[in-house]
Amino acid sequence: MAKEGTEIAEETEQMIDQKEPDNPVSAVVDSKEMRAVLLTGFGGLNKLKVTKKPMPEPQEGEVKIRVKACGLNFLDLMVRQGNIDNPPKTPLVPGFECSGIVESVGENTKGFEIGDRVMAFVNYNAWAEVVCTPLDFVYKIPDDMTFSEAAAFSMNFVTAYMMLFEVANLREGMSVLVHSAGGAVGQAVAQLCSTVPNVTVFGTASPFKHEAIKHSVTHLFDRNIDCVPEVKKISPDGVDIVLDCLCGENTGKGLTLLKPMGTYILYGSSNMVTGETKSFFSFAKSWWQVEKVNPIKLYEENKVMAGFSLLNLLFKQGGCNQVKTAVQKLLSLYDQKKIKPVVDSLWALEEVKEAMQRIHDRGNIGKLILDVEKSPTPLMANDSTETSEAGEEEEEQEGDNDNKERMPFIQ
Amino acid sequence: MAKEGTEIAEETEQMIDQKEPDNPVSAVVDSKEMRAVLLTGFGGLNKLKVTKKPMPEPQEGEVKIRVKACGLNFLDLMVRQGNIDNPPKTPLVPGFECSGIVESVGENTKGFEIGDRVMAFVNYNAWAEVVCTPLDFVYKIPDDMTFSEAAAFSMNFVTAYMMLFEVANLREGMSVLVHSAGGAVGQAVAQLCSTVPNVTVFGTASPFKHEAIKHSVTHLFDRNIDCVPEVKKISPDGVDIVLDCLCGENTGKGLTLLKPMGTYILYGSSNMVTGETKSFFSFAKSWWQVEKVNPIKLYEENKVMAGFSLLNLLFKQGGCNQVKTAVQKLLSLYDQKKIKPVVDSLWALEEVKEAMQRIHDRGNIGKLILDVEKSPTPLMANDSTETSEAGEEEEEQEGDNDNKERMPFIQ
Repeated sequence: MAKEGTEIAEETEQMIDQKEPDNPVSAVVDSKEMRAVLLTGFGGLNKLKVTKKPMPEPQEGEVKIRVKACGLNFLDLMVRQGNIDNPPKTPLVPGFECSGIVESVGENTKGFEIGDRVMAFVNYNAWAEVVCTPLDFVYKIPDDMTFSEAAAFSMNFVTAYMMLFEVANLREGMSVLVHSAGGAVGQAVAQLCSTVPNVTVFGTASPFKHEAIKHSVTHLFDRNIDCVPEVKKISPDGVDIVLDCLCGENTGKGLTLLKPMGTYILYGSSNMVTGETKSFFSFAKSWWQVEKVNPIKLYEENKVMAGFSLLNLLFKQGGCNQVKTAVQKLLSLYDQKKIKPVVDSLWALEEVKEAMQRIHDRGNIGKLILDVEKSPTPLMANDSTETSEAGEEEEEQEGDNDNKERMPFIQ
Repeated sequence: MAKEGTEIAEETEQMIDQKEPDNPVSAVVDSKEMRAVLLTGFGGLNKLKVTKKPMPEPQEGEVKIRVKACGLNFLDLMVRQGNIDNPPKTPLVPGFECSGIVESVGENTKGFEIGDRVMAFVNYNAWAEVVCTPLDFVYKIPDDMTFSEAAAFSMNFVTAYMMLFEVANLREGMSVLVHSAGGAVGQAVAQLCSTVPNVTVFGTASPFKHEAIKHSVTHLFDRNIDCVPEVKKISPDGVDIVLDCLCGENTGKGLTLLKPMGTYILYGSSNMVTGETKSFFSFAKSWWQVEKVNPIKLYEENKVMAGFSLLNLLFKQGGCNQVKTAVQKLLSLYDQKKIKPVVDSLWALEEVKEAMQRIHDRGNIGKLILDVEKSPTPLMANDSTETSEAGEEEEEQEGDNDNKERMPFIQ
């Protein structure tokens, strides 16, 4: 790992709550307690620690899951910084998705049996050994899907699927621009686009990722350059769908790139994470800096502007049935071997700082997974996944000074 | 007709260009000239007259059509007032759609034979006895489709179809709110919604139209009241698709009514026509008064905001292939007798003022047609169409003083 990574790793050894006498990984499971990642307050990486929490028990309609793997998303960095609208109170256990085995179910909780292999959405609290979540957010997984794949599947593939096929209307012959094409959503988008004939994918990514992901993206651009003129050189009319997780000043540019009848979708705002640790200011600033759009302009230009937030849909807007439909379609595509989650790397709960730093530095190709049963030693995904190049490429990335300047260390 | 209507009719007798010696309707066709409606300058109804124009001849790739019927749209009123972006120079012949018989074709114009029954889009110049337009904008019509139906078909059904099925993604069980449900687009929307199982249509219309259109709309509201609380009483979660041709201050309200993953589509701005005859001011005012939308709001609320302008798509943005696909699907639905254009009334070219006044007063149910072969005597669509109620209802509308106050006479 990077020099900084080594320093974090040393610190990690100290970050286990000093009151815990046992080695947390090898300890016999105490049925009244569980390990979990705790965010003690909004801010830098030093706000994270692994601690023991009371064992949760399933309420009516809930499923209790012995967690095997958790997904780490860019959004988790924004949560850590408090860079979200109406942030919850700290301390909290972060994490929105996990996979594992059903350990028990609450009253009136039909459809799941103890021992079922599942993946689940959780409204926080996913980064723990045990999770309880309503049955509407739990899905059985295929026998041949690993827990790491399952934890890499739900958030990113559902987001990509609903954007491409429900918000937009991806059809044969269309073109899609996706930023952060090497990220977990970007890779899910690229795979889903390949299920439709003759779709052109334009993607931006750091140059060191290009070799690893070039098979999945038709035209790759350096994320440090303005891709608009480059896309227009290849496709003067523009593209049919622009997927934007960066936000900031790029909204107007994204709309400019759209063909008539095209759809621009904002699905994240990772430009809000700029190294600051303060919470409210960044969010408010982004809100005001984003260019607002006149509906009459959309009318004249025949354009569609949309936003997509899976977590809001699930946890604030009662969209679990829509999401369940999408999950079923995606699992069918998985069974047909048309899609397969790309896992970048596996990390122990105690390594969450290093994992967050890696995603912050945009060093990952595909998904970062917290492997609950893993001991705190770095381990890249094995060769059977599509991420072997990721591990190799990562070495080069350490020398990516330009990247470091852009994204300063945010301890 | 209304008292005002009678006055216009008397004036109409004077509006034929005085230089024309013959009765224009019964005159033998002079192959070097044709009759056409002329807009002499932007403003009130007095800017319209019927005159003779040189006979157009088809250029390479064009089809020459002997026109039987022309469609009259609200947009034509906006053109007359100059209330559009970048209005063309006057004098001009208005009109964007017609039906008729192919009279000849230009060089390299394949796919059409003399005598073919067709409907066509025209970039102005439709309100004339003869029209030439590129073959990409011409479509053969079924044998059992009347010319009036064909002239009522293209603009409104294509607009409704592309909004519901291409911009939005209408599926079983969804709900749609359409303003001006009694208008030609509104009726097309209602019919197309009925081709999808279990779709709920909310509509606004003047009370006098309710009886006539109640079979096509699930829930009807008085257009003079704020429908937002009424819709929410019936569907507290809101609706999936809002179609807005009014614009103005209603954009924000429309977005409020959307369910998560819902789509708001602005497809017109008829609120710009408020009785003024000045051109630029109204358009610019609307542009600035319309509430602009922050993409982050769409992200947080999972909403889609879109605009749709068929004419811009066709004539400015090269979308004729997309439109052709939609026309083919619509003609298939027509053949299956799942849709049928609603014709409100037929008018001679010389009656264009009365026709415009009727659409301005929102007295119509369905489409107003300029029947090129008709002599200047009011004639309601016959009983075989779905518009017999329209003619009867119209009598009631004359007493609709509230309506008159809202929409003052705009001579």
